[in-house]
Amino acid sequence: MATPDEIRATIDRYIEAFTAGDAEGWAALFSEDATQEDPVGTPVNTGRAAIQGFLDNNLAMFGSLQLHLKQEPVIIGHEAALSLYALAGTGADRARMPDIIDHMTFGDDASITSLRAFWTMDSITPDPE
Amino acid sequence: MATPDEIRATIDRYIEAFTAGDAEGWAALFSEDATQEDPVGTPVNTGRAAIQGFLDNNLAMFGSLQLHLKQEPVIIGHEAALSLYALAGTGADRARMPDIIDHMTFGDDASITSLRAFWTMDSITPDPE
Repeated sequence: MATPDEIRATIDRYIEAFTAGDAEGWAALFSEDATQEDPVGTPVNTGRAAIQGFLDNNLAMFGSLQLHLKQEPVIIGHEAALSLYALAGTGADRARMPDIIDHMTFGDDASITSLRAFWTMDSITPDPE
Repeated sequence: MATPDEIRATIDRYIEAFTAGDAEGWAALFSEDATQEDPVGTPVNTGRAAIQGFLDNNLAMFGSLQLHLKQEPVIIGHEAALSLYALAGTGADRARMPDIIDHMTFGDDASITSLRAFWTMDSITPDPE
């Protein structure tokens, strides 16, 4: 069993690595055969390499990405539900995804075994720096 | 297929009926064989009668319950993710569940086929009126 503190540490590293543009470190937080669906409704990435590819592609597209918690994560057993917002791009072209809800599951080693991110394109707003 | 507008209408009625203490009207928004787990980690209620019993019991315990959206629901296909807070009780004894995240699935008729509510007892704070 992973403890709530271990799961919280994974969540914190998830946000830090994403925001630092560290796709390899970010992908390493997932289990080897994890699934990742972001946003929900798009094709599911399976396995650490495909998951890293997701962030590599987004970093190539936007240059800079930020992820921020809006409230304390809700951690119950090996699951968590998160409310977040994201910023994509820099300068005048920066955009905000204001209302993201992530559902994560975790393995005994507190690695992420699945992630589903609920947000929609039509919620995106301009947020120039 | 249920449309996003139909699903949004179910969500709005869900919150209104809950806050009005209308357990029968609230339970009627679920499909006949729906499942409801609130909070996640407690026994799952299966079927409309058991689900109504959940709210009947909580109304008997707290007298008054309120549910409020914190942001626009994220609706994707036949799923929704909600960020909410709740108030339980009245007067000096009122308590707040500040950070609730609901995951819902819906049938073709926009009835709720499953609900899982993520929140923890240790997040509850006093919120006297």
